[in-house]
Amino acid sequence: MTKSRLEAFSDGVIAILITIMVLELKVPHGTTWDVLVPVLPSFLTYILSYIYLGIYWNNHHHMFHAAERVSGGVLWANLHLLFWLSLVPFVTGWMGENHNAPLPTAVYGAVLIMAAVSYTILQATIIRRQGSESILARAVGKDIKGKISLILYAIAIPAAFVHQGISDAIYAIVALIWLVPDRRIEAMY
Amino acid sequence: MTKSRLEAFSDGVIAILITIMVLELKVPHGTTWDVLVPVLPSFLTYILSYIYLGIYWNNHHHMFHAAERVSGGVLWANLHLLFWLSLVPFVTGWMGENHNAPLPTAVYGAVLIMAAVSYTILQATIIRRQGSESILARAVGKDIKGKISLILYAIAIPAAFVHQGISDAIYAIVALIWLVPDRRIEAMY
Amino acid sequence: MTKSRLEAFSDGVIAILITIMVLELKVPHGTTWDVLVPVLPSFLTYILSYIYLGIYWNNHHHMFHAAERVSGGVLWANLHLLFWLSLVPFVTGWMGENHNAPLPTAVYGAVLIMAAVSYTILQATIIRRQGSESILARAVGKDIKGKISLILYAIAIPAAFVHQGISDAIYAIVALIWLVPDRRIEAMY
Amino acid sequence: MTKSRLEAFSDGVIAILITIMVLELKVPHGTTWDVLVPVLPSFLTYILSYIYLGIYWNNHHHMFHAAERVSGGVLWANLHLLFWLSLVPFVTGWMGENHNAPLPTAVYGAVLIMAAVSYTILQATIIRRQGSESILARAVGKDIKGKISLILYAIAIPAAFVHQGISDAIYAIVALIWLVPDRRIEAMY
Repeated sequence: MTKSRLEAFSDGVIAILITIMVLELKVPHGTTWDVLVPVLPSFLTYILSYIYLGIYWNNHHHMFHAAERVSGGVLWANLHLLFWLSLVPFVTGWMGENHNAPLPTAVYGAVLIMAAVSYTILQATIIRRQGSESILARAVGKDIKGKISLILYAIAIPAAFVHQGISDAIYAIVALIWLVPDRRIEAMY
Repeated sequence: MTKSRLEAFSDGVIAILITIMVLELKVPHGTTWDVLVPVLPSFLTYILSYIYLGIYWNNHHHMFHAAERVSGGVLWANLHLLFWLSLVPFVTGWMGENHNAPLPTAVYGAVLIMAAVSYTILQATIIRRQGSESILARAVGKDIKGKISLILYAIAIPAAFVHQGISDAIYAIVALIWLVPDRRIEAMY
Repeated sequence: MTKSRLEAFSDGVIAILITIMVLELKVPHGTTWDVLVPVLPSFLTYILSYIYLGIYWNNHHHMFHAAERVSGGVLWANLHLLFWLSLVPFVTGWMGENHNAPLPTAVYGAVLIMAAVSYTILQATIIRRQGSESILARAVGKDIKGKISLILYAIAIPAAFVHQGISDAIYAIVALIWLVPDRRIEAMY
Repeated sequence: MTKSRLEAFSDGVIAILITIMVLELKVPHGTTWDVLVPVLPSFLTYILSYIYLGIYWNNHHHMFHAAERVSGGVLWANLHLLFWLSLVPFVTGWMGENHNAPLPTAVYGAVLIMAAVSYTILQATIIRRQGSESILARAVGKDIKGKISLILYAIAIPAAFVHQGISDAIYAIVALIWLVPDRRIEAMY
């Protein structure tokens, strides 16, 4: 029961975050095509953030499917992850409204890297409780994807001050890495 | 379990979307009857969008009732549907505030057609996994309703530039088509 | 399953409505006691609406506890109830910001009466399916409370144009009537 | 079932509150470091409130894990707790926007103390129903933490008018007290 309530709560928070981001898409004043132009960067940023939150929900789902029971430490590691995810609408709004200016783009990356770090902590907390022979531990393995993502984010953040397009491309690449189905965990079913 | 979590997440997103649309109904300044007049088109658009989201929730509910298990592909096809539904409050706000001007009305239709397409993709993804002899495959059959809806939306979008009233009427007709109870799926119970 | 998903969806919508109303409490500018004065009517209206939504959640909870299965008609009767409840934040904001002026107070009552009517329809739809000998049918009985509420709302709406205080008092009285535990349904447990 | 629906509803409300607070973090205009400076107090207040809501969710979770069945009284005691928690985003926004000025800081404390009181009432309502020999009654014991928190809040509220830093420190200390894992209840598992 403990596990299902944690899942329900996390689903609730992610569902609300994904939906609340839409409120950052300000309804334009006017009814011509050109009023949609300033909405475009916000819209593209919205799509990127939507995909990121979708990936987190998906991976969270798989991870807890493989988890057995949850401790107090897992509850807090999970709240820590949700904290960083909760900042996604804020940085999405800021980056979108400013046509991906350097600082907002870097801050967006900072939130993504903190979310990735907190996800790694959550994963390690669950595995520590279950032992290195558990299904989850074997499915995660060396967590190559997780490590590559962290490295890419660490490159993208300073790169925003060179040209924000580099960072945007890196954020899109990391999303693509995770969109590819994860055969390790899928194989567990 | 996988299936119930997907349902809970989708319910959460649709419940939030349906509720967040109300935030687009701006509380009027003033306390006389005439301050309610500009709220009226927003209110009518809200009713239309509420009915559409209600129909999607209802159909989603029936479809997953008939589904057995869900794959990674189904998770993403579902997130794809929720993405288009998440744009409903945005286009509802835009169309409502502009007394159904041509462009917002056409964009509203574009979101509806994309939602319908993504629903069809989700349905096909579930059926492919279950086989053409499954309960769902037989209940859906040739999916006449789905095809008619797509055709009507495709007419409504350009029609908005002739007269937006035509498009509004078509959107209402499609909603009515779906409000009529679907004997095919109800018969499964 | 059908029943539990309907409950979860309704819980979601009511939980969001109850929370979204707080967004109508505008954060005051300034840090002195007097900036809180204009917030006071909004706050009192918020309390009233919170209690109403709490009562609806509570009664909804008891009603579906007693219900066995749900049909397509019940799904739509439930969405109809949620529609009227979804307007509560809008009228709460309007009434609160205008110190309970006559028209907003009357419109608030109109939303309450429509919610009550739609609740009665939902209840009748469930009972029709279960038969007059069902637990719910016997628990509801002649539904004296429901009928008194409808009469009181019908008085409160025109009374707002005489003096809004009368309507406010009636809304509070109806809430009190329902806050008193309902021995009929509690007895079922 | 009654219990799980109450849990789901409470999870929903707390999940929404935690997420809605982020809307009080206004997206800054401009793209330089200095536009982030005014966001900082709002951000720190957000972190504090996030931790508080996380603690309430966590404790609520443990408490109902130990509860067996819920009565009508528990439903209302729970709604009472959620009412005070629902005001957290409002006071968070007010306190954050005003760099922790005395009055907003005191009002923040007032909401925290009312939340703590309503939590105590909820706890007592559940225990009364289960008897003093129940798991929950023994786990709660003399509720030292609860009592210390109430005393600290009662000091923090007037202290805000001396210096708001004192109150902020006290709020942080109370949060820390609760963040330390509660061995009494954890031991139940």
